[in-house]
Amino acid sequence: MEKRVEAITDMNVDFAQWYTDVVRKAELAEYAETGGCIIYKPYGYAIWELIQKALDTRFKATGHENVYMPLLVPEGLLQKEADHIEGFAPEVAWVTHGGAEKLMERYCVRPTSEVLFCSFYAKDIESYRDLPRLYNQWCSVMRWEKTTRPFLRGREFLWQEGHTAHATGEESLAEALQMLDVYCEVSSDVLAMPYIKGQKTEREKFAGALATYTFENLMHDGKALQSGTTHDFGDKFARAFEIQYLDKNNKQQYVHQASWGVSTRLIGAIIMVHGDNNGLCLPPEIAPVQVVIVPVAAHKEGVLDKATELHARLSKISRAKLDTSDKKPGWKFAEYEMKGVPLRVEIGPKDIEQNQCVIARRDNGEKISVSLDALETEIPALLDAVHKNMYAKAAARMAERTFSATDLPTLKKILDETPGHVKAMWCGSDACEVRVKEEATATSRCMPFVQEKIGDTCFVCGEKADKMVVWGRAY
Amino acid sequence: MEKRVEAITDMNVDFAQWYTDVVRKAELAEYAETGGCIIYKPYGYAIWELIQKALDTRFKATGHENVYMPLLVPEGLLQKEADHIEGFAPEVAWVTHGGAEKLMERYCVRPTSEVLFCSFYAKDIESYRDLPRLYNQWCSVMRWEKTTRPFLRGREFLWQEGHTAHATGEESLAEALQMLDVYCEVSSDVLAMPYIKGQKTEREKFAGALATYTFENLMHDGKALQSGTTHDFGDKFARAFEIQYLDKNNKQQYVHQASWGVSTRLIGAIIMVHGDNNGLCLPPEIAPVQVVIVPVAAHKEGVLDKATELHARLSKISRAKLDTSDKKPGWKFAEYEMKGVPLRVEIGPKDIEQNQCVIARRDNGEKISVSLDALETEIPALLDAVHKNMYAKAAARMAERTFSATDLPTLKKILDETPGHVKAMWCGSDACEVRVKEEATATSRCMPFVQEKIGDTCFVCGEKADKMVVWGRAY
Repeated sequence: MEKRVEAITDMNVDFAQWYTDVVRKAELAEYAETGGCIIYKPYGYAIWELIQKALDTRFKATGHENVYMPLLVPEGLLQKEADHIEGFAPEVAWVTHGGAEKLMERYCVRPTSEVLFCSFYAKDIESYRDLPRLYNQWCSVMRWEKTTRPFLRGREFLWQEGHTAHATGEESLAEALQMLDVYCEVSSDVLAMPYIKGQKTEREKFAGALATYTFENLMHDGKALQSGTTHDFGDKFARAFEIQYLDKNNKQQYVHQASWGVSTRLIGAIIMVHGDNNGLCLPPEIAPVQVVIVPVAAHKEGVLDKATELHARLSKISRAKLDTSDKKPGWKFAEYEMKGVPLRVEIGPKDIEQNQCVIARRDNGEKISVSLDALETEIPALLDAVHKNMYAKAAARMAERTFSATDLPTLKKILDETPGHVKAMWCGSDACEVRVKEEATATSRCMPFVQEKIGDTCFVCGEKADKMVVWGRAY
Repeated sequence: MEKRVEAITDMNVDFAQWYTDVVRKAELAEYAETGGCIIYKPYGYAIWELIQKALDTRFKATGHENVYMPLLVPEGLLQKEADHIEGFAPEVAWVTHGGAEKLMERYCVRPTSEVLFCSFYAKDIESYRDLPRLYNQWCSVMRWEKTTRPFLRGREFLWQEGHTAHATGEESLAEALQMLDVYCEVSSDVLAMPYIKGQKTEREKFAGALATYTFENLMHDGKALQSGTTHDFGDKFARAFEIQYLDKNNKQQYVHQASWGVSTRLIGAIIMVHGDNNGLCLPPEIAPVQVVIVPVAAHKEGVLDKATELHARLSKISRAKLDTSDKKPGWKFAEYEMKGVPLRVEIGPKDIEQNQCVIARRDNGEKISVSLDALETEIPALLDAVHKNMYAKAAARMAERTFSATDLPTLKKILDETPGHVKAMWCGSDACEVRVKEEATATSRCMPFVQEKIGDTCFVCGEKADKMVVWGRAY
């Protein structure tokens, strides 16, 4: 019994170990025998299913349709777009044999499916009537990473990838920006995670993209996380793959494309934005169990009956679970705290006498007594309050950990002492960005859409600068 | 325009070509550049999503949880169970390189995930309290097939695989039988497909299983299709992988396992059970569009408004689509017939005058006039009637195409002239089964749970026989 409630590593002592402890003790995932890969256990996968549903509903509401492309990409196809192959070739897994036979052409396990969508669109799109094509795919992808960490970086991860084709560059840009907004809405309204959104620099953009947009969350340890990106390809891939359509004037035109993706990395973000020394803390919208009912003195007459009755009532308004196992209530309290269940309902003989129950909140530890007659209004209100408080706490932490700098040594000092997001003016030169990487081991996170004027000279070289960039050390 | 409505091959002339025509003209799938693989287009994938939902709901209602295992299986792991590796080694794809580096150990792309679940269970299960483990996974698998056909046989297909661990052999058997019942319920109640269910012979069972159970559907051309199977492994894999638990008496015991799977092959079954010379015919439960509204004389005043109003109303009670494109009504009629949409609502100026619309059924071509005030009761009733009629038609065809034989030449003659299911008594010897394969190019489909006595001697060797087996030629 004790195994499960034993203390996890203090997050202030060793954040990386705390993270791994939470992943395993909250039963989200386990290491697999396949090197660099994880097994998504039921609780972790259920969180992913709820994230998928929140995203998929919004994709469909904005006119997107799901498709499925093959897992394997012929080598010749991957090589068609020069920047793209350069970005991905070093980290793909190669299939060389089918059964006992050596293949004529190698296949790579998709690291992303750009080129498959492109070769399909090249055949499938004929006229302006076929546009836009708004396709998305849910699948797993593979990148042969050297160092891995559950959910954050792995050789295989689950994700969605949207790939769209449009008549004009204005439309493909609008698509990339629209989907970034969809992601940001999910970040705040579903995952209770504040974000900054903006454009990536040339150095940090996706291999083959014209422009990459990102939303970035700030983790509990002050490190940055790129949680999802959207890309405008313009007609770059269309030219490499000859994807043309006949316009209204009967002229051949290249399509313009966008793509966008988020992955199970979001689960890593949730852990590191909301978790604490009691374990996971889940936003109600994606909590597989929103309310756990724990009977106290369950052997006493009427307690189990009442708990069962409450379970039936609460199941109508939430994802509710009743734990009737023979473990002690204290053990259960710790267990569901570890698993991040937003609300715990305790019901014992004294509560029943007084027609009430005790409700404990995971986000702030508050315990309140609530009349049993009021549960249908109180529970939804509390779930809503938990979400809002989780968002507010994370937003306050992000604000506290957002700094500005006007020279490189200051930026380095901030990141060494109080890691977070650091705003600084940048001249736009790649050389300066490289220096930040070399001298402060920091990267540009994005050029936020909402700009501020921290000064008017580049914090690296001192030349004139009009771009505010957010810098940080990232996962 | 014409391209889409051009006639498809007559199913009585060339069934295989008719099948391929339907797959492509109904826009279900397209061939991919990856050899032997297909692209699931939006309409085909939407059907799969609805099938998934019908299954997943039933899996969860029977206590199963979803997980996700890695795509790649280390070669050493695949080799642990002798029968299993023998069955799969000839048809797996091998990953040999990660980036530029040759791997120390090869990985195969999962052809199924038995061994991954087994190695996980070996570590994860400790005591009787951990049982049963009722896990399922949605994913794609790969088998390096030589000849492929969309949905029926491909190098990659989408499926679900349930893998469960139990304390006793009675429980693993009960699980295999329960999940077969779940599949059969989906076959009849969701897909409107009659089936026979039973046990596979030794020769036809799954590599490594103690017993395999199957449900078989009969296609329009009289060929059989194994639509899904469930397996009881007993403790065979548990002994190979050392999956043990401590029982209530503190003794180590091997677990007993079951597994079960259905795939996108079900889409192939739907096409070949229900389709006709007008194209696809979809059971309402899994039709992405259940009702299509086609305005007639759409340029006349009030028609588009009324059609839009109907669309809003019908969207509340069904998956409804309004086609306002500038194509001619006749083109649209043929298009949605090809796509198998169960109901078509036609609305024109005369209909509006009389406060009615015309509803055409895809399953039998009937057209009826219905008062606009009655749509909320008529549409659900018609969808229900379509489902029932589709089931009844398919059941009548299966009954018509079910024969019995008491000797091998008769069985061969039946299969040559009027292919279907043929019942015949079998002595149980493998030699006789091999003779059926060699002399009549037929295989045993199953030993049905509901047995009949066609005679008391084996139709092959004439020895005493007490098992009735259904034979056929299968996809």
